[in-house]
Amino acid sequence: MLKNINTSQKMDKDEYKKEINSLGLRLSEMQRVCKDEKIPIMVIVEGWSAAGKGSRIRSLIRYLDPRGFEVFTTNKTTEDERFRPYMWRFWKVLPAKGRIHIYDRSWYQSIMSGHRKKEAKLAAPVYDITSFEKTITDNGGVIVKLFLHISKSEQEQRLTLLAEDPNTAWRVNNSDIKQNRKYKKNRDRFERMLSETNHNAAHWTIVEADDSRFADVKVYRTVLAAMESAVQAKRDKTTENVDIVLSAIPEGSSKLAEADLSLKIGRDDYSTRLKAAQNDLERIHNAMYKHRLPAAMVFEGWDAAGKGGAIIRTVASLDPRGYKVAPYGAPNDVENAHHYLWRFWNEVPKAGHMTVFDRSWYGRVMVERVEGFCSTADWKRAFGEINDFEKQLVDSGIVLLKFWLHIDPDEQLKRFELRTNTPAKEWKITDEDWRNRDKWDQYLEAVDEMINRTSTEHAPWTIVEANDKLFARIKVIETVRDRLDEALSF
Amino acid sequence: MLKNINTSQKMDKDEYKKEINSLGLRLSEMQRVCKDEKIPIMVIVEGWSAAGKGSRIRSLIRYLDPRGFEVFTTNKTTEDERFRPYMWRFWKVLPAKGRIHIYDRSWYQSIMSGHRKKEAKLAAPVYDITSFEKTITDNGGVIVKLFLHISKSEQEQRLTLLAEDPNTAWRVNNSDIKQNRKYKKNRDRFERMLSETNHNAAHWTIVEADDSRFADVKVYRTVLAAMESAVQAKRDKTTENVDIVLSAIPEGSSKLAEADLSLKIGRDDYSTRLKAAQNDLERIHNAMYKHRLPAAMVFEGWDAAGKGGAIIRTVASLDPRGYKVAPYGAPNDVENAHHYLWRFWNEVPKAGHMTVFDRSWYGRVMVERVEGFCSTADWKRAFGEINDFEKQLVDSGIVLLKFWLHIDPDEQLKRFELRTNTPAKEWKITDEDWRNRDKWDQYLEAVDEMINRTSTEHAPWTIVEANDKLFARIKVIETVRDRLDEALSF
Repeated sequence: MLKNINTSQKMDKDEYKKEINSLGLRLSEMQRVCKDEKIPIMVIVEGWSAAGKGSRIRSLIRYLDPRGFEVFTTNKTTEDERFRPYMWRFWKVLPAKGRIHIYDRSWYQSIMSGHRKKEAKLAAPVYDITSFEKTITDNGGVIVKLFLHISKSEQEQRLTLLAEDPNTAWRVNNSDIKQNRKYKKNRDRFERMLSETNHNAAHWTIVEADDSRFADVKVYRTVLAAMESAVQAKRDKTTENVDIVLSAIPEGSSKLAEADLSLKIGRDDYSTRLKAAQNDLERIHNAMYKHRLPAAMVFEGWDAAGKGGAIIRTVASLDPRGYKVAPYGAPNDVENAHHYLWRFWNEVPKAGHMTVFDRSWYGRVMVERVEGFCSTADWKRAFGEINDFEKQLVDSGIVLLKFWLHIDPDEQLKRFELRTNTPAKEWKITDEDWRNRDKWDQYLEAVDEMINRTSTEHAPWTIVEANDKLFARIKVIETVRDRLDEALSF
Repeated sequence: MLKNINTSQKMDKDEYKKEINSLGLRLSEMQRVCKDEKIPIMVIVEGWSAAGKGSRIRSLIRYLDPRGFEVFTTNKTTEDERFRPYMWRFWKVLPAKGRIHIYDRSWYQSIMSGHRKKEAKLAAPVYDITSFEKTITDNGGVIVKLFLHISKSEQEQRLTLLAEDPNTAWRVNNSDIKQNRKYKKNRDRFERMLSETNHNAAHWTIVEADDSRFADVKVYRTVLAAMESAVQAKRDKTTENVDIVLSAIPEGSSKLAEADLSLKIGRDDYSTRLKAAQNDLERIHNAMYKHRLPAAMVFEGWDAAGKGGAIIRTVASLDPRGYKVAPYGAPNDVENAHHYLWRFWNEVPKAGHMTVFDRSWYGRVMVERVEGFCSTADWKRAFGEINDFEKQLVDSGIVLLKFWLHIDPDEQLKRFELRTNTPAKEWKITDEDWRNRDKWDQYLEAVDEMINRTSTEHAPWTIVEANDKLFARIKVIETVRDRLDEALSF
């Protein structure tokens, strides 16, 4: 692929001027259309050292409204980034719907830089990257991937020119020189990267870049084409209408039906075990901090199942500087303007820290599904997206625990009535709680499917029998303690 | 003050249990009330080393709903923080309305640490800090400032205990030991800090902390009292109803009236000067990056005055990795849940970078004033708040430029009509533009007063005569060039 490409194609100045002007006006128009259609656009610019990445970006933005785009440079990582999953830094700067983000180098840097000696390790980032790109495009985003390709002699010439000019000499470093010296070997490496990450969701475009005019025009055209086809797809509702076929779930495999809701615990036993678990957790939390072990806990469950009470008791003995409880309700408008996973990525814990997610990304396959806040294709696709997301968390070293607090409808009714009749608890009950209750069966079906499809080896669900609050709290805190203790002992 | 305080007051265990339980229930209730009343609360915990800051915080949160508070530790600064004004890191983590943020150490660290040898430098942070605290509380926030005070012997004992235990030895460092050895000198220093920063907007509470139970109860009581009085003030609309008296503006001092809107420039002259200025700016922008000079530009002006066109041409030649255009419209709901300056603090440029504010914090004294989106007291107070904010930017080394693009009503009408009648420009005109136009005189009064009150020595306004678009663009870009060039030459 790279080998047989003629990088030295040229365009003369007059033709260029005419072309760019007409493409530029279309680009400017498409920026407005994509804004109106609320399509987020990511353009990543990769390529050889000195291939002109910066110059192409500067040319590309000439016709764009500066209020609607932003340029990001992939620099050396900060501590905040190193202590989190690799893709976190890119999720953080995901464009909101209607905006254009341009990346001078990108998530491909971990592969491009070639730092990782063991090629076997390549598999993981490739999977993470393609799954990332897929979830972006599946949810209506556009990713344009440009690879600026220059010949060995062109690169050598450019590096020499840069090095000779005292104003630009600082831009040339050893790894650039080395890249040129081992051009063929690197070309093979890039070739492999390109083919392994060239998938339907986001194709690579090789830009022949010896001639900057030719390259400019190809960049403009590629970006334009991507925007236009995204607008078309949006208008045709291509993603919404796609028919997603999920594997069948065997009859009678409901995990919820198996839960024994009569499980109980005595008050004395409760106090003793709670105290013991809290003491253990305090010690474990300190050790986690010391060993930089991060953890994420997801709490889901029926309204009034006791999530809040279980969370409070689980974190009660912990140093508040080392954990955070992140509560999630309906998304606010900034959150709504982003990919649905964005607001959860923002709270992914740093090494040594803990995030408690009070409701979570599972909203997609529960409330959003049942209430019709997303399309059928959206929630069906979400099972895979969620499994991939969780796999990235776990692969990066995060201990992930997921709790479903389960009660039956009678118990819920009792608690709702108690809340309604107790002035101090009245604030805890809303009309929405009653409305959700009316849809118990629909929710039950959704939850059953959710637990079935997202109980993976790396992130299994723990179903907590919660008709007895005391039993539920003990089961939660002891599970947390045991799982974290186990993780520490590795 | 500190000297004569008896730090060793005690409380017995039974009394403590009863007290804390009853205070805790009230605190939990007040947390809900403050959430409903949308009052943001900041609790900062300062004090001697080993005074028990961490322990007091852990006790304080025992009765709080973990979904409504967050604890922050003031650690060593990151590069992102060091390259921005000192208060930036605290603005970033300002609580949204209704939330409680607790700070283990705080913005007082720069004074507490005593790193700055020259005590003369103390004046600046004290002013920045008190003005920060004032703007928070004036806008309905609560700041509780706790100083944990222990005696010299108590501190010595605690440090020794910590140092002897291998599990805690790492927590004691040289500066702690030194703090104890020079206890008296430090006490005098802290004393001075406390008295200089003890103002009506946010009083200090000295917590006698030799006995942890006594300290706990005092912390609870102080936080409770602050919350209760904030709720009362909110219900009485104390801040809204305050009568703010501004200095009189002399008759006939309208800067806008003086603007000569007949100023014009020829097309050829325009092209030559634009090209020259863009070339200069490209060079200057590189030099700014190299010398880590940051800049902020504010663009305000009438609808259709040509802000967008001027901005595009000013940044056209710049490396997009070194600047950002931040457009501001009506605040979204996250922004609305914060102090009105918060969303602008978030975009304060890093050293060596440039932010172009396309509309800005001046919305407070223009659209919010005219449309009644804030109280009269709010916008009257805003002049001082804005001047203080800008002073902090400038003091930290940011070059701040402010442009008002001025046209007359006839010119505006012509441009509105052109937009309405040109399909390619129709998107630029909205009903709101026409509505604003009907209030020309009210806006004129507001703008005149704004320019009068916020043209400070550190941040003067540049009025741009913009009836002729070409003239306006040249005036903007040449002003930017000259001011930045001048700043670089220092």
